[in-house]
Amino acid sequence: MSDRAVPATPPPLFDTAVVAGVGLIGGSVALGLRQRFLARRVVGLDASMDVLREAEALGVVDEVRISPGEWLREADLVVLAAPMRALEPLARELAPFLNPAALVTDVGSVKSGIAAEMERLGVRHFVPGHPMAGSERGGVVHARAALLENAVWVLTPTDHTPLTALSRARTLVEHLGAAPVVMPPAAHDDLVATISHLPYLASLALTHMVARDERLSLLAAGGFRDLTRVASGDPRMSRDMIVENKEALRCALERFRRQLERLEADLDEPEELLAAAYEGKRTRDSLPVVKRSLLPQKHDLVVAVPDRPNQIGAVTQALGAEGVNIKDIEVLAIREEGGALRLGLESPEEVQRAAGILTGAGFEVRGRS
Amino acid sequence: MSDRAVPATPPPLFDTAVVAGVGLIGGSVALGLRQRFLARRVVGLDASMDVLREAEALGVVDEVRISPGEWLREADLVVLAAPMRALEPLARELAPFLNPAALVTDVGSVKSGIAAEMERLGVRHFVPGHPMAGSERGGVVHARAALLENAVWVLTPTDHTPLTALSRARTLVEHLGAAPVVMPPAAHDDLVATISHLPYLASLALTHMVARDERLSLLAAGGFRDLTRVASGDPRMSRDMIVENKEALRCALERFRRQLERLEADLDEPEELLAAAYEGKRTRDSLPVVKRSLLPQKHDLVVAVPDRPNQIGAVTQALGAEGVNIKDIEVLAIREEGGALRLGLESPEEVQRAAGILTGAGFEVRGRS
Repeated sequence: MSDRAVPATPPPLFDTAVVAGVGLIGGSVALGLRQRFLARRVVGLDASMDVLREAEALGVVDEVRISPGEWLREADLVVLAAPMRALEPLARELAPFLNPAALVTDVGSVKSGIAAEMERLGVRHFVPGHPMAGSERGGVVHARAALLENAVWVLTPTDHTPLTALSRARTLVEHLGAAPVVMPPAAHDDLVATISHLPYLASLALTHMVARDERLSLLAAGGFRDLTRVASGDPRMSRDMIVENKEALRCALERFRRQLERLEADLDEPEELLAAAYEGKRTRDSLPVVKRSLLPQKHDLVVAVPDRPNQIGAVTQALGAEGVNIKDIEVLAIREEGGALRLGLESPEEVQRAAGILTGAGFEVRGRS
Repeated sequence: MSDRAVPATPPPLFDTAVVAGVGLIGGSVALGLRQRFLARRVVGLDASMDVLREAEALGVVDEVRISPGEWLREADLVVLAAPMRALEPLARELAPFLNPAALVTDVGSVKSGIAAEMERLGVRHFVPGHPMAGSERGGVVHARAALLENAVWVLTPTDHTPLTALSRARTLVEHLGAAPVVMPPAAHDDLVATISHLPYLASLALTHMVARDERLSLLAAGGFRDLTRVASGDPRMSRDMIVENKEALRCALERFRRQLERLEADLDEPEELLAAAYEGKRTRDSLPVVKRSLLPQKHDLVVAVPDRPNQIGAVTQALGAEGVNIKDIEVLAIREEGGALRLGLESPEEVQRAAGILTGAGFEVRGRS
């Protein structure tokens, strides 16, 4: 055996990952799985041939499938990422073909319904999930692994979810660069009713006031635009989400009305109102900020590094010897078996060049497509 | 007389402008007046010596005064820019010293009260105003002329306001780069109750829900932060604004409640709710966007240009001959007597160099302080 360590890609967490529903979130999960070397192969399943073609062309998935079947038994990870209204029908379609040992999760924004449905279907290793990430622009074309980085990703096990499944789901989420938060499905649904669905409804109510009086739009630039941004999302997805969670949303609305009434009463109590304004500012300013990667998004390259001494040195030296300027470097999730490095380079040409150099040195690399 | 046109600064719109209250908005007005050569001199009046020292050191004003007096008779423009609660007392303090011919305006965010007070005080050439611009960060240190550029600036004449005064106020606003919109004071107050004060109250109510349940802050990153940004403004200013406008705000709240009730009822009518979601998106997406200057904010220089042929050419040639690279150029408001050009340069050093070259060629220049 040679003294010189021969680089090798660390073994992936999963062999075959299936992402069912390849839109913004599904596509981003698929990209995260690929770019961070978490699955040997990523299969995209979608009922739309157009979506599959686009996903393949963009390098979001390794393989595509238009319908479920026996082939699904090979999957040891299945991520359901269809829109809310299609999630439970999709679960019923896939259930007969799932490998009982596969970890199954979903990315829907309301959790009680799918959690109950999966128990009815007897999918034991199912861990309901909700990555709190999104964008006004949907579709696989806007998918990117970075969308999930540092995002809160709620996991909502039921009393019947095996702890081993929860543990695997947690590992998956962490390796995608997100922050897992665990709570029961109903608790999640109550919280998102307040933090997400109620603000959507309030934002919609405000825009409807503008729709009823065009003079308002004269003055509606600036802050009002910020406040109503959520009303600009996909109408059907938003509608489905709030209808699915309507009981919790009604409770949140009731609490919201009580807060508004108290504030209205305080209009005659200026000192109380001032205290309320200070408390609002204190709370708002202490909300967590999602830290996004500082790396430039465009010219980066991810390198798999095995668990051997000085692999970061080996990568940087190989590039340095050829005059490649590494502008930024970030260690992605490190596992026992090794991990991955993300390198920020100067141009697409440098990414190509660096990829060639590192491949030649035995490393496995992935760039953005 | 020589053939060669000797550059000269165009005569300003006003001789002596007084800005009373030198904070974010007052300071921005003062900077706009100076940078766009709209007044021969700009005097800052403020009860705080610290604020005056800061304004002078930042080059926001030409002179400072700590209290009103006979000197005010020299002013042909007086802009009241004190906080809401101090506006009417300030008006009463200044009124005895105002030149009857001076144009007087204010920048308060509620208009009925000050309009009535000025009529009681017999200030005839008063045009109430409300530039709809702001920032989470207040104080003269954050003032900048660009804050007002392309902002909607509401002017609210009463039935007694002379049209000549309205016309002068309109000219002032346009020359500051803002867009005047004219309506009666009560109409303005109704509209801002809906577009600004109600959203503030709704945002406050949402943050109070988070304050009452810390688990919510776990999930509150992202969209919720956007939605509650207005709750992060200055609590005292926000409180004063909504208390001043409480009658109109109560009506807006009532309309908001009706919209929310209708949406809540639609939770059981998914098709209605979908239509409401589409209508909300359509309205929100059609809101006007405030176009900010495309120029980099940092390294620019404003040059006064007289109304003579080819002055833009004269400026650019003078700089080009010395190798100054003009990265961007923008024509600021042009008047009959001439106007001003804003130049984007590469560095503070280049701004210094260009200022020297243009001053040598007889132009008057102003940079950011």
